[in-house]
Amino acid sequence: MPSEFDLIRRHFDRAAAHCDLAVGDDAALMRPRPGMQLAVSTDMLVAGTHFFADADPALLGWKTLAVNVSDIAAMGAEPRWALLAIALPAADEGWIAAFAGGLFDCARAHGVDLVGGDTTCGPLNMTVTLIGEVPTGEAVTRGGGRAGDELWVSGQPGLAALGLAALRGDAALAADGLQRCLDALHKPRPRTALGLALRGVASAMLDVSDGLLGDLGHILERSGTGAVVDTAALPFAALLATGADAALARRCLLSGGDDYELLFAAPPARREAVQAIGARLGLPLHRIGTLTDQSGALLLREADGTLQASPATGYDHFG
Amino acid sequence: MPSEFDLIRRHFDRAAAHCDLAVGDDAALMRPRPGMQLAVSTDMLVAGTHFFADADPALLGWKTLAVNVSDIAAMGAEPRWALLAIALPAADEGWIAAFAGGLFDCARAHGVDLVGGDTTCGPLNMTVTLIGEVPTGEAVTRGGGRAGDELWVSGQPGLAALGLAALRGDAALAADGLQRCLDALHKPRPRTALGLALRGVASAMLDVSDGLLGDLGHILERSGTGAVVDTAALPFAALLATGADAALARRCLLSGGDDYELLFAAPPARREAVQAIGARLGLPLHRIGTLTDQSGALLLREADGTLQASPATGYDHFG
Repeated sequence: MPSEFDLIRRHFDRAAAHCDLAVGDDAALMRPRPGMQLAVSTDMLVAGTHFFADADPALLGWKTLAVNVSDIAAMGAEPRWALLAIALPAADEGWIAAFAGGLFDCARAHGVDLVGGDTTCGPLNMTVTLIGEVPTGEAVTRGGGRAGDELWVSGQPGLAALGLAALRGDAALAADGLQRCLDALHKPRPRTALGLALRGVASAMLDVSDGLLGDLGHILERSGTGAVVDTAALPFAALLATGADAALARRCLLSGGDDYELLFAAPPARREAVQAIGARLGLPLHRIGTLTDQSGALLLREADGTLQASPATGYDHFG
Repeated sequence: MPSEFDLIRRHFDRAAAHCDLAVGDDAALMRPRPGMQLAVSTDMLVAGTHFFADADPALLGWKTLAVNVSDIAAMGAEPRWALLAIALPAADEGWIAAFAGGLFDCARAHGVDLVGGDTTCGPLNMTVTLIGEVPTGEAVTRGGGRAGDELWVSGQPGLAALGLAALRGDAALAADGLQRCLDALHKPRPRTALGLALRGVASAMLDVSDGLLGDLGHILERSGTGAVVDTAALPFAALLATGADAALARRCLLSGGDDYELLFAAPPARREAVQAIGARLGLPLHRIGTLTDQSGALLLREADGTLQASPATGYDHFG
């Protein structure tokens, strides 16, 4: 069996373009550009909690990095340097090679260098830390939303949750719909270009990892606002087209996690700027509601005009 | 049961002195000082591999951060910002409070701010990523050693391995000796001040986490040199004073990990500078050998003058 050091070298030690010293010393060395703040995020993925233990290792490699890229994108920052700590139950070289392949695919797609890490023996666990750069003072936080700002969400939230429901036998989907949902679940595309484009446009932003309403709650809390979400403005059509019933589609869109779409607020005066960004990127951006001055109050406006309080939401890993 | 978010907030969300935005957004924001390189390291500690599952949580918290502080110190860098990703089998608030207490003790002792992280459910696993700063070009890597440089090790390597041997029933130690060994094992003191002082003095450096000879092998590999280690110069006395027999003491000192002492090379012309640093810090620095031009050859010179090749060494987590 190849040693730990051999395995690391063989699969994870690739040339890092933007790093002074990468894998192989006590620490990696890198040089931030002048005038930049660092945006740093870490995400731990655990077998049984975040994915099935027999999941495709190439897709896992992609997703392990992608969820962190999404966090950095949600700050309006540019992802740059990643570190991977991984615990493996056994030194299965085929698995490791496939995992590394998927991870480096995602790294290339988003301009990220893998600069360091740690490999050990233990129950399957992948933890990536990602460092991004953003011009000082230009990061888009969760706390900048103001009453009157419009709420937007990118792409198609709900697909990943629908895919998970199908895998669990809770939804019978048409074959092509199922494929689209599983692709969203297993290979999320972080909205890096959108996050960068929204710098100076969005007032508050985050990525939807725990569910649209639950994550919106974080914006309300940090911005000190409330919100009204217009359910008629939510992109249900694509979910229904997969063959899902309306109740499940609604649940997946409002409370499902794992899509890594961006949810953001922007002043009404920037509406055309937002629309222009969506057009340029070829990415649907849905205007789904408004921030209000009722701090913490999250209301849903139904198609008939009635308002109701949002159900308790947010995914709790200990719930 | 308090939710994940409540637990994080209650125990890990403390004021970060040197951070623009800490725990609570998609990413932390921090501003490196001009002219600085970043030194970044990540270490994953897994129950059953790195510690016993019933270990004291306060000591675990200390050690989880300390092993990363040691990596940054070994680059001659100043530890600054930490992120903690943690998987817990259950939301046991007493355990979390004690763990956080130990972690923040270590953070305070070494000037580190906890700026972000991730908490999830799963087999016990703690992964810290630590970001340090070092003036550009001044980091001490593993690769700068030259033939003729003298080899040094700090403090008392071997204590931690001896403590582990005692816990496993492989060594019967006197009570006060046992206490000293367990303290070294459970509460390693990273040599931050020494690492900073050796900037511009040491030619190569690393921290001894996997065993003195095994880690020395990394210096030889990256520096393209060999080494002769004088066993008579190794600090055996303190190990023997614990009641350990000579063979075990030798094995622990040469091949035991987990002490987090610094192993470094320096030109003979800097010998007095090294000694002055040791005196100033009140820390014994042992001159234990010399780098040679026989690339990769690691020899032990015994007290009687005979030379022998080093046994295969280095701790492999998959071994």
